[in-house]
Amino acid sequence: MFYRCRCPAHSQMACSNIRYGAGVTKEIGMDLQNMGARNVCLMTDRTLSQLPPVGVVLDSLTKHGVEYKIYEDVRVEPTDKSFKAAIDFAKQGHFDVYVAVGGGSVIDTCKAANLYASHPEAEFLDFVNAPIGKGKPITASLKPLIAVPTTAGTGSETTGVAIFDFENLKAKTGIANRALKPTLGMVDPLHTLHMPSRVAANSGFDVLCHALESFTALPYNLRSPCPSNPINRPAYQGSNPISDVWARHALKIVAKYLKRAVRDAGDVEARSSMHLASVFAGIGFGNAGVHLCHGMSYPIAGNVKTHRARGYNVEHPIVPHGLSVVLTSPAVFAFTANMCPERHLEAAQILGTDVSNIKKDDAGRVLADTLRSILYDLEVEDGLFAIGYTKEDIPSLVKGTIPQERVTKLSPRAHTEEDLTALFAASMKLY
Amino acid sequence: MFYRCRCPAHSQMACSNIRYGAGVTKEIGMDLQNMGARNVCLMTDRTLSQLPPVGVVLDSLTKHGVEYKIYEDVRVEPTDKSFKAAIDFAKQGHFDVYVAVGGGSVIDTCKAANLYASHPEAEFLDFVNAPIGKGKPITASLKPLIAVPTTAGTGSETTGVAIFDFENLKAKTGIANRALKPTLGMVDPLHTLHMPSRVAANSGFDVLCHALESFTALPYNLRSPCPSNPINRPAYQGSNPISDVWARHALKIVAKYLKRAVRDAGDVEARSSMHLASVFAGIGFGNAGVHLCHGMSYPIAGNVKTHRARGYNVEHPIVPHGLSVVLTSPAVFAFTANMCPERHLEAAQILGTDVSNIKKDDAGRVLADTLRSILYDLEVEDGLFAIGYTKEDIPSLVKGTIPQERVTKLSPRAHTEEDLTALFAASMKLY
Repeated sequence: MFYRCRCPAHSQMACSNIRYGAGVTKEIGMDLQNMGARNVCLMTDRTLSQLPPVGVVLDSLTKHGVEYKIYEDVRVEPTDKSFKAAIDFAKQGHFDVYVAVGGGSVIDTCKAANLYASHPEAEFLDFVNAPIGKGKPITASLKPLIAVPTTAGTGSETTGVAIFDFENLKAKTGIANRALKPTLGMVDPLHTLHMPSRVAANSGFDVLCHALESFTALPYNLRSPCPSNPINRPAYQGSNPISDVWARHALKIVAKYLKRAVRDAGDVEARSSMHLASVFAGIGFGNAGVHLCHGMSYPIAGNVKTHRARGYNVEHPIVPHGLSVVLTSPAVFAFTANMCPERHLEAAQILGTDVSNIKKDDAGRVLADTLRSILYDLEVEDGLFAIGYTKEDIPSLVKGTIPQERVTKLSPRAHTEEDLTALFAASMKLY
Repeated sequence: MFYRCRCPAHSQMACSNIRYGAGVTKEIGMDLQNMGARNVCLMTDRTLSQLPPVGVVLDSLTKHGVEYKIYEDVRVEPTDKSFKAAIDFAKQGHFDVYVAVGGGSVIDTCKAANLYASHPEAEFLDFVNAPIGKGKPITASLKPLIAVPTTAGTGSETTGVAIFDFENLKAKTGIANRALKPTLGMVDPLHTLHMPSRVAANSGFDVLCHALESFTALPYNLRSPCPSNPINRPAYQGSNPISDVWARHALKIVAKYLKRAVRDAGDVEARSSMHLASVFAGIGFGNAGVHLCHGMSYPIAGNVKTHRARGYNVEHPIVPHGLSVVLTSPAVFAFTANMCPERHLEAAQILGTDVSNIKKDDAGRVLADTLRSILYDLEVEDGLFAIGYTKEDIPSLVKGTIPQERVTKLSPRAHTEEDLTALFAASMKLY
């Protein structure tokens, strides 16, 4: 599974915007030169700015004489405020190409900076997803953006989505538009060797849920309302035969490599395989969408009180995105299974459970048990309770989920506020 | 596997340029309106111009008030001469968007017309693949091109390749550049219900060989020479983890549906599944490349004497592309197997052969036997002899293969002229 790339020209892959290979980033300066870049904005965060992935990029820019300015104030789990700071930097810089080196937080922040610098007259809420924002169409051309992911999770290098915490609402929301999709993703497995073990686990859970949610999302031809013009097609359009290919394939890699990637940062085969799995799952969910685990994760992350995430070098309390997503997954898939039991059973089977004698009615229980067992083995916190929530918090968690209709409406099973309450309650303890 | 699309906005899929669903073409006029098209070039061939796929497109253009001119003189299995006629039409028309409704011949012709109309100063050989042409880089922006495939074979809607017969050389060659990739492919399974049975078989063989050849192509990181700059990366870059996903998936669909799609034009599930398989295989090979079956097919088609293809409504002798490709496949994979026996065995297994007790040394024989059995069941002509070739033709077939280095160099096994001679000789009779 590990492909060592001998040169930058060897490795750009299907689906056009992904280039993959160990060492592929080291010639990024040549790409920027080919693009005629004269004034590059390099975005990263303060931890990464001291690490080899950023060093490799800077060396290459210098070697090829590419002028750049660096912005290293990206917030891990960004907010509207941190987005706006990056946007101000971008507006002042009049950049012609953007380069984002980091995890989803960095890449998403860079997408937003590029978007608003290209629409200097726009209000911040103009492009934010409705109903929180106005969800306006993007009319101007954005500048090229090269994404260099350093975690194996978000798949942000493949998608047109940028997520942030809207601090007033204590919930995550985002901007979703194909125009945000990076021009090029440089997926260099050497970069993931720098992830702490818990970052590998949490970003791996994001991959797992991207694959499971897109695989079980409402099929694209059952989605409603039905837009009368293709231009109003949403970014997330439901499961379909192409996203299914990516979801199944990503799940197989997660089943084989996630535990190894978490246990041993030096397991190059496992870490590079998970890096590709995040790309594969990203291509799938970036098209099909995600549903309840992601929709419910936004208030779980947004309402964080004092939880200090193990292995993260940040000064504020956070629930890492992948953790906030995966903690509700056993409850969610137990809830959705009856709408497409074959897919839930197939997912459980890919994840290692023998389903040969399981009845369809038990599909939800079996997939939930499979997930609990994976989480237990990976020493994940025992439910929402373990990260600081109690039953008293459920109403505000439900309230924070309601505006996430952009994703929750892709759940294969319709749901009420009572259902969401029950799902949060069932996620308080896992084991 | 059959997805009925309720509206055009539902169905655009991952890998960005494919929209899939029964009936998806009927709103193409709205897309053209959204693109601001004022002067559309609609290309097709004389048979299709009388059939529903073209009728649906014309109705939609009329309904949405889109102005167009129609070019229906595309040659099935196009030549440099027929390409040039289409190019002249395009140059005179000053079109702002191109729409190609047809099989690979139509889509490829339309790509070439768009390319040369956008580069009016260029000589025809400027962009043709070296060593036959000059293989110059494409610098101008092409106009948008919407491809509506009506066969389930070429995958041309997903690739940047346009193939034609170069009549002087009696061999096929082409133009290969990412800039040729259609802006949008509208894959409407209803269209394939109009394919005659032999067209379904031959285009299915093209899918089969796209998948087998890209799956067994030289891995991308072993390809040489190694370009020093990413801008010189070829369109075909060798097998890689992403193209492998598409190749395996396409093979599975071929194994399940090809025979049904050939036997019964009304088997909507089989025909629509093969239509998607052609897309999947196209995305894979459009990135990884093909090798010996395709390289050897070009002189087989180009040197045609009197063979009249069953089921094709054309006035000249032709060897349909899919047939010219598949007839050498047993010999080719017997020849290449030792370089990656696991992949050859896996392919045989996907195609339905029990390989559990097969030794690696027998991988080539087993895959060749599997292919012969499929061809026999589908009543394919018994080798090159049955389509009019004798041993005396082998030197000219070999001579016509030599210039196909763009693809043949992706063979996992290096080969001499003697090897090519032996491969053609072994393909004279199959059963």
